[in-house]
Amino acid sequence: MKKIAVIPGDGIGKEVMSACLKVLEAFDFPFEYVFAEAGDETKEKTGEALPDETLQICKESSAVLFGAAGETAADVIVRLRLELETFANLRPAKSYKGVKCLFDNVDIVVVRENTECLYKGLEFEVKKGVTEGIRIITEKASERIARYAFELARRDGRKRVTALHKANVMKKTCGLFRDVCRRVARDYDDIEFSDYYIDAGCMYLVLDPWRFDVIVTTNMFGDIVSDLIAGLVGGLGLAPSANIGEKYAIFEPVHGSAPDIAGKGIANPSAMILSSTLMLRHFGYISEAERIEKALEKTIAEGKTTPDLGGNLKTDEMVEEIIKNIEE
Amino acid sequence: MKKIAVIPGDGIGKEVMSACLKVLEAFDFPFEYVFAEAGDETKEKTGEALPDETLQICKESSAVLFGAAGETAADVIVRLRLELETFANLRPAKSYKGVKCLFDNVDIVVVRENTECLYKGLEFEVKKGVTEGIRIITEKASERIARYAFELARRDGRKRVTALHKANVMKKTCGLFRDVCRRVARDYDDIEFSDYYIDAGCMYLVLDPWRFDVIVTTNMFGDIVSDLIAGLVGGLGLAPSANIGEKYAIFEPVHGSAPDIAGKGIANPSAMILSSTLMLRHFGYISEAERIEKALEKTIAEGKTTPDLGGNLKTDEMVEEIIKNIEE
Ligand SMILES: CC(C)[C@H](C(=O)O)[C@@H](O)C(=O)O
Ligand SMILES: CC(C)[C@H](C(=O)O)[C@@H](O)C(=O)O
Repeated sequence: MKKIAVIPGDGIGKEVMSACLKVLEAFDFPFEYVFAEAGDETKEKTGEALPDETLQICKESSAVLFGAAGETAADVIVRLRLELETFANLRPAKSYKGVKCLFDNVDIVVVRENTECLYKGLEFEVKKGVTEGIRIITEKASERIARYAFELARRDGRKRVTALHKANVMKKTCGLFRDVCRRVARDYDDIEFSDYYIDAGCMYLVLDPWRFDVIVTTNMFGDIVSDLIAGLVGGLGLAPSANIGEKYAIFEPVHGSAPDIAGKGIANPSAMILSSTLMLRHFGYISEAERIEKALEKTIAEGKTTPDLGGNLKTDEMVEEIIKNIEE
Repeated sequence: MKKIAVIPGDGIGKEVMSACLKVLEAFDFPFEYVFAEAGDETKEKTGEALPDETLQICKESSAVLFGAAGETAADVIVRLRLELETFANLRPAKSYKGVKCLFDNVDIVVVRENTECLYKGLEFEVKKGVTEGIRIITEKASERIARYAFELARRDGRKRVTALHKANVMKKTCGLFRDVCRRVARDYDDIEFSDYYIDAGCMYLVLDPWRFDVIVTTNMFGDIVSDLIAGLVGGLGLAPSANIGEKYAIFEPVHGSAPDIAGKGIANPSAMILSSTLMLRHFGYISEAERIEKALEKTIAEGKTTPDLGGNLKTDEMVEEIIKNIEE
C-alpha cells in the first residue's frame, strides 16, 4: 500500500478533492488515503495554517494530494514545497476540445524552479517605509531544474526547451540561470534550446504560443507564466500541477479556494482530477492515467460540465459522467 | 526654443528616429534637436555605452527622444531612467483598426514604477554558484507612482486603476506596495480601484483584457505586463512609452534595435512616432499630437504600412503617407 496524504484545505478544495477521490476509487489502486488539515479554517481552529501533524503525515507519505487554501495559501503551499524539497513545479497547459480557448493546439509545460528566487521569504523592513526582498539563485538549483526540463522533454517526446529569464537586468542572478541552462542544453543535442527575456517571452506567448513546448524558468517568473498559459487555453479550470522532489511529491490544481462559489456544489473538479493523474503517472500507472484523462476529455467535449466550462452540471454529476466515460 | 536630446542608438533605432523627426518637422515646433550617442556602437567606439557627454546633453534638455540600443540596452536605458529620475514609465496599448489583434477595443495604460524593485542593480555573487539580487520597495516611490496612476486616470477620463503585486508571497515588499496603493485609492473615490496578484492579473489580461484600464505596478512586473499587453494588441510595432520625472522625461518605443531587420529600411516607425506624440502631449501640444496620431491610424487602416503590419511599404514611404494624412 502507498500512503497518500490528502489535504482538501479550504473552500472548493474540499469539493474538488472529494470529486477526485471518487474518480480514483473507480480503480483499485493500492493507496491508503490519510487525511490531514491545512489552510484558513485550520488556522482559525489551531492557530496554525500548516500544523506539524500535517507536515508529519506528508513526510510519511509517498505523495500529497492538495486541494486549495484561502488567505493562508502561501503559508501552506509555499512552506510545503520548501519543507518537502519539491524542486520542480510542473504546470502543463493544453487546449481541450469543447473549452473556449484563445488558441487551439497549444500544448506547453512549464517547469518552474520551486525552491528559491523570491520565494525564500527573505524580506525585511530596513527602516520605516523601506523594504527589501532577497532573490536567491544558485547554480545547483538552476542546474537541477534545467536537467529536469530536458529529461522531461526527452521522456515525453517533446522537441524544444525554452528558458525565460531577465539576464540583461539581473546580470548575476538571471545571468547564472541563463548560463547554466545554456550549458546543460549542450548535453541534449536532440532537444532544441532557446532562451528569451521574460518580457519578450510573455509577448511571444500571446502572439505565437506554438513556438513553446517546454518552458523552464525561475520561481517567480514561473508563477506568472503558468497562469498566463492557463489563460491562453481558457483559464484555471483545467490547470493541474505537480511538485516533484527527490523524496516527496505534491499534486495540486493551480486554482485557489474560490470563496465566491465554495459550498454551492458547482466547482469544476477537472484541475484536481488532472493533478491526480499526474500523480498516477508519477507512480507509473500510465494507462490508468490515460483512461481517466480520456474520460475527462470526452466528458468536456460532450458539454457535460460544470457552469464555468459552459455546462449546467453540478460537481457530482460531472464526476459521474467522467466515471461513466472511463473505458475498460 | 526647447532643447530635445535625440539618441537614435543602434539598429532600427536610427531608422525609426529619422522617420519620427520627419513627421515632427511637418510642424513648426520650437524644438532644437541635439543629437547624442549611446548604445553598442558607441561602446565599441568609446568604451562606454552611455558616455558622460550624452548624459550631460540629456540633463540640459527638456526631453529625450530615444530610439533603441542593442546588447547594451540595460546599461543605457535603465541607467538613463535612474540618472534622470524618471519615476513613472507609461506604456499605453490599444487595438488599432487594420492591425491583427487578439482583442478589439483594448485600451490599457501600464504605469510602471521606474526607479526601484529589482532594477537597482544590487546583485552579488555571495560565493561561487550562489547569487543574490535585492528587491527594494519604498513607501515613498510606491506612493508617488500610485498617485501618478490615479492622477493620470482622472486627467485622461479613465475609470479604473488596478494594482498588480504578489503580496501573498512578498509580504513586506509587495505588501507595502499594495497597502500604499489601497490607501492612496481612498483619496480618489471617483476612480474604481482593485488589486490582484500578478499571476492572476496576467491570466485575466488574456481572458478578459477589458476589465483593465490603468494598471499600476512595480518595475519588474511592469516590464512583463507591458510586453504582454503589447502582445494582446498585435505586438511591439505600436507600443510607445514615456518615462516621466519631476525634471526630465524620456520617450522611447518599447521595441529594441531589431538587428535582424536593421539597415533594410523596413522598420515600422509607428512606436517611435507614438512616443514622440507622448512627448508632444507632455509639452501641452495636444491637438498636434492628436493630428499625428489620427494620421497614423488612418495610414494603418489604409494598409499603407511596413511589412510587419501587413503592408509592403518601406519606412520612408510609410512616413510620407502619414505626413500626407495629417489634417489641417
Ligand atoms: C498561492 C501562491 C503562494 C502560489 C504561488 O505563488 O506559488 C500560487 O499562485 C501558485 O501558483 O501555486
Ligand atoms: C532593455 C531592458 C533593460 C528594458 C527593461 O527591462 O526595462 C526593456 O525591456 C523595456 O521594457 O524597456
